Amino acid sequence: MEKKMSVMIRSAWIITVMIVLFTPNLFVNGGEWKPSWSSRAAEEAEAVAAIRCSGHGRAYLDGLVLHGHQPVCECNPCYGGSDCSEFQSDCVANAGSGDPLFLEPFWMKHAASSAVLVSGWHRMSYIYSDGSYISELLVDHIKKLHDIVGNAKADGKYIIFGAGSTQLLNAAVYALSPNSSSEPAKVVATSPYYSVYRTATELFNSRDYKYEGDTSLWKNNSDDSSTFIEFVTSPNNPDGKLTTAVLQGSNVKTIYDRAYYWPHFIAIPTAADEDLMVFTISKLTGHAGSRFGWAIIKDADVYERMSRYLTLNTQGVSRDAQLRALKLLNVVLEGEGRELFEFGYTTMRDRWIRLKNVLSKSKRFSLQKLSPQYCSFFQRTKDPSPAYGWLKCEREEDKDCYAVLSAAEIDGRPGSTFSADDRYVRLSLIRSQDDFEILINKLKKLVAE
Amino acid sequence: MEKKMSVMIRSAWIITVMIVLFTPNLFVNGGEWKPSWSSRAAEEAEAVAAIRCSGHGRAYLDGLVLHGHQPVCECNPCYGGSDCSEFQSDCVANAGSGDPLFLEPFWMKHAASSAVLVSGWHRMSYIYSDGSYISELLVDHIKKLHDIVGNAKADGKYIIFGAGSTQLLNAAVYALSPNSSSEPAKVVATSPYYSVYRTATELFNSRDYKYEGDTSLWKNNSDDSSTFIEFVTSPNNPDGKLTTAVLQGSNVKTIYDRAYYWPHFIAIPTAADEDLMVFTISKLTGHAGSRFGWAIIKDADVYERMSRYLTLNTQGVSRDAQLRALKLLNVVLEGEGRELFEFGYTTMRDRWIRLKNVLSKSKRFSLQKLSPQYCSFFQRTKDPSPAYGWLKCEREEDKDCYAVLSAAEIDGRPGSTFSADDRYVRLSLIRSQDDFEILINKLKKLVAE
Repeated sequence: MEKKMSVMIRSAWIITVMIVLFTPNLFVNGGEWKPSWSSRAAEEAEAVAAIRCSGHGRAYLDGLVLHGHQPVCECNPCYGGSDCSEFQSDCVANAGSGDPLFLEPFWMKHAASSAVLVSGWHRMSYIYSDGSYISELLVDHIKKLHDIVGNAKADGKYIIFGAGSTQLLNAAVYALSPNSSSEPAKVVATSPYYSVYRTATELFNSRDYKYEGDTSLWKNNSDDSSTFIEFVTSPNNPDGKLTTAVLQGSNVKTIYDRAYYWPHFIAIPTAADEDLMVFTISKLTGHAGSRFGWAIIKDADVYERMSRYLTLNTQGVSRDAQLRALKLLNVVLEGEGRELFEFGYTTMRDRWIRLKNVLSKSKRFSLQKLSPQYCSFFQRTKDPSPAYGWLKCEREEDKDCYAVLSAAEIDGRPGSTFSADDRYVRLSLIRSQDDFEILINKLKKLVAE
Repeated sequence: MEKKMSVMIRSAWIITVMIVLFTPNLFVNGGEWKPSWSSRAAEEAEAVAAIRCSGHGRAYLDGLVLHGHQPVCECNPCYGGSDCSEFQSDCVANAGSGDPLFLEPFWMKHAASSAVLVSGWHRMSYIYSDGSYISELLVDHIKKLHDIVGNAKADGKYIIFGAGSTQLLNAAVYALSPNSSSEPAKVVATSPYYSVYRTATELFNSRDYKYEGDTSLWKNNSDDSSTFIEFVTSPNNPDGKLTTAVLQGSNVKTIYDRAYYWPHFIAIPTAADEDLMVFTISKLTGHAGSRFGWAIIKDADVYERMSRYLTLNTQGVSRDAQLRALKLLNVVLEGEGRELFEFGYTTMRDRWIRLKNVLSKSKRFSLQKLSPQYCSFFQRTKDPSPAYGWLKCEREEDKDCYAVLSAAEIDGRPGSTFSADDRYVRLSLIRSQDDFEILINKLKKLVAE
């Protein structure tokens, strides 16, 4: 009897040990997959992501782990301290650059689906398997996205990649300029416009094209001998208007900068179908730092010339940036883009409403007039949700509106930056929530004066 | 007694259950860290890496998983089939482009340390925390690397990043050209030279600089009025010689392309200390596809002008590519770079020896003459290990050496591509092992004729 019992005891213990030793997976997160060579990278990334920075900053992988020192929080403007918990009330509200950090919370929420693990041997070659510098899979994703959003007709057209729209804008100017012509093409834009059209065109000081100022100077010009290249930003930066080309004629080529033509910022009336359209993920997913954009091109020769430019300028776009863009667009396409655009639109609309309300308390300032429009993507009428406030100082004496705002500790972009009157200032509404809150508070004070 | 026994049995089972339920980590790969949001990305990457492609190709993350279809092997030239197991004996040996895949095995071996997990919100901003487009941590790594290798003096100089050396070469031409001068700078190089110096310079068709051919045309020229910009590739592409500038004088600026100045390809005699040196990871780590290079600059004005170019051309280099480069250099720096450079040097030396042996069997072809030199990095005398064979057809009738090789199913780069005699052909030795083996076999046949 005793013997039988002790056998049972022993067997109980043996079973215990057997279970423990030979079926560990039974207890591993319910039999979940276990990483091998990828675990170091995954652990690094999660360790960095776990650094909260009080919600007023963030730590980055290239800010610390590799350096082997203590984690470093990179704080939002006006926040300081090792954990970004110290608010500096006397600091200047940053409403300057169009840094699209308003979308950062979306990506933090989609951590699992948007993460990419890049192996050490990923795409070392200059070329993809088809011999090009361009990921055809990414081209497919881009076409699918335009199809879903209905903001551009991409089927049957050429698509080329660039380091953000910046590189593509100049590549387009090069491609549209006449070959070895006696007279350089005249590059023009309509004020107020994005200053890079002028500065980048002037930088290269080419014999093939020359910046020739505002379209208004050439509107009633009957010069058919020279080629005109007109930049059209639609929706426009800074004022958010859905602009169209001013110049017409067989000698006029148009570059449509469609950076802001997404449901975040505007009600999409119809799919754009211009000869040359430029897009960027900077204002779509918010990844300005990745430097990835694309152009949709109708004409084969223009495509060939832009390809040549991209090849000789940078040998295409970083394959790492292309992989990242692919992963991000993949997340956007989940659920037909509704989640990203709902988030983007709601955020921008709410910011616009709050900005308008604050300024409505005074006659001293005015904003661009925007009205609700029907959006073919959301299939409903949408309130305005522009990327920027185009603020005007109405008082006779406030000729330098930038100075007026600076005195109130608000840093915007002066009108002259957009070849416009300095009575105007552009206020960026697409930055972090912290930056926006600080802007609103400083404006409240200013308006209350 | 029985009661006592049954209590012991029960307690044994209770302990078992307690252990199992409340200390699972005890059995998780020996208490290993468990991933949360990063696991999907890690699993995707490992699934792709597990696709072997018979050792004659590889699968990539952006080749499949995101597409939701079956894994696709991207096969090396002359290999086919869904798993790259089918060798096509009749196909042409690819010895054309300088695709640096010879280093791919090194990174596959260092999978754990070279992997990077990029979160969806990594570096979305245009700028780093210091307001620049450049990762200061990466600058530190680059300086440390040059210090360890002893191939360039970087301390106290300016460092700027570009999309590979390609973008930096033109940025340098821009920066060294006189401002608004009546006469454009004369851009020159010494044959045989990398063709992009000419093609990229001509592409922009600038009023500030103009390509003016070979240095030999200007060697004895006493023109002091115009600025000369001389490209010097050292070691030289294609012939691997340690070249120096041909033109001298206060009106001559030199751009030193140091892409190949690493222990893989040459015995490092001393640390280069020129005014403007350009490097790229393409020929250092083999990551041509990442498009990352840097320039080391002495003069503050030149640095400022190059920075302006980089800003207006692409707004800096992709932050994703910078993160990747940081991780890769971090691995290179482990063990003071010995492992990477031993691997690179051994591989290239062995290939050079085999190429020489094959060609020594015939008087029909010759190779550039290279001799063993003392390497300050390895602190020993090293045999030649050039990136390219600069092959010459010696027979009177073989004026078109490229055609001679093409007839033998070997694709190189004709001498004229390097502004040299077509009696020469460049054979790339830095491609995959498969490409090299096929090249050797085709050459054996040709030589045996």
